[in-house]
Amino acid sequence: MGKRYKNISMAVIRRLPRYHRYLKDLIDKEIYRISSKELSNIMGFTASQIRQDFNNFGGFGQQGYGYNVEELYGEIQKILGLNNDYNCIIIGAGNLGQAVANYTDFEKAGFYIRALFDSNPKLIDMKIRDINIYDIDKLEEYVESNKVDIGIICTPREAAQDVANTLVKLGVPAIWNFAPVDLDVPEEVIVENVHLSDSILTLSYLLSNSQL
Amino acid sequence: MGKRYKNISMAVIRRLPRYHRYLKDLIDKEIYRISSKELSNIMGFTASQIRQDFNNFGGFGQQGYGYNVEELYGEIQKILGLNNDYNCIIIGAGNLGQAVANYTDFEKAGFYIRALFDSNPKLIDMKIRDINIYDIDKLEEYVESNKVDIGIICTPREAAQDVANTLVKLGVPAIWNFAPVDLDVPEEVIVENVHLSDSILTLSYLLSNSQL
Repeated sequence: MGKRYKNISMAVIRRLPRYHRYLKDLIDKEIYRISSKELSNIMGFTASQIRQDFNNFGGFGQQGYGYNVEELYGEIQKILGLNNDYNCIIIGAGNLGQAVANYTDFEKAGFYIRALFDSNPKLIDMKIRDINIYDIDKLEEYVESNKVDIGIICTPREAAQDVANTLVKLGVPAIWNFAPVDLDVPEEVIVENVHLSDSILTLSYLLSNSQL
Repeated sequence: MGKRYKNISMAVIRRLPRYHRYLKDLIDKEIYRISSKELSNIMGFTASQIRQDFNNFGGFGQQGYGYNVEELYGEIQKILGLNNDYNCIIIGAGNLGQAVANYTDFEKAGFYIRALFDSNPKLIDMKIRDINIYDIDKLEEYVESNKVDIGIICTPREAAQDVANTLVKLGVPAIWNFAPVDLDVPEEVIVENVHLSDSILTLSYLLSNSQL
């Protein structure tokens, strides 16, 4: 594990995956050197924003040369913790849970889905790729005997808080929550929400306030 | 259609769905009046932030009384454009597309999924709830003869830009994009991205920089 960074604002943290994504694109296009101005043009952030962001992590790039794309990509990978592997489980193996389990990009980034859990008898012991769907009753036993870094909640709204409580009780340090509810968990537990409803309401706002 | 608001910052806009969600919870709990201080406590925004946000829309609430929850909820619904219905189509009817089609909460909020499209012959003419999956070759014909407000892209990365181009060409005003790619579309087209990868990378950062 590399350096640890503290007191970095969430706004900066949320831009890092975007840098990561764009730098990967540049590498795929065999572009190995870029100025902060050019990077600014393709990303839609100002050059000064980009320099400020990177200064949080000690700054990269050299005056008059710009950024070495591969080096910068590597550094951002480290900052994002992508040189680690994470053991993930999915609770809720309906369409959404299955979609997440099938999304092999996550695995390439080090997020390994080890098991799914569901209460629907029809789903139990089915496999998504090679990953087994277990009875939700087996969740505690599973987490007690396997290291789980991230619990991915893909249950309906009603079940989400109970599942979160179980994960917290069992010491799972991070939750990726797809259920449309804000989970109530102790402060030290990391929760990242994917609120699809919030996203479509934003779209609705933009659409109904547009010129059309 | 109600008033139109302009020059509201995206940061404010992105908080509106959250207000909407919390106010709905209050109504469900039969709480009909709340001070900005109490609202601040449950939402985790400062009271002054809340007042500032609402001032963008003319301000709600009365000195010494606080907010009438149902009124405020109704106003935010209007601001978000939720008194309209939207015709949506989903392109890409794999697990993710099916998950979105099955998510009936969207329908309750006025987002009606009218059709799905896919290139996989096995999926064509299957139904998700009552909604038909059409051959992707029928997309143009469908959009030309039906009003489509929102195109929901649930295809793999490689297909997303082509689908977006088609939607733009056919005059679809808004795109909700689940593919892990930033779409290149004309400025007047509204795009809201759900970048699941960005979300899990944020989680990865928080996890690898936590105290654990």
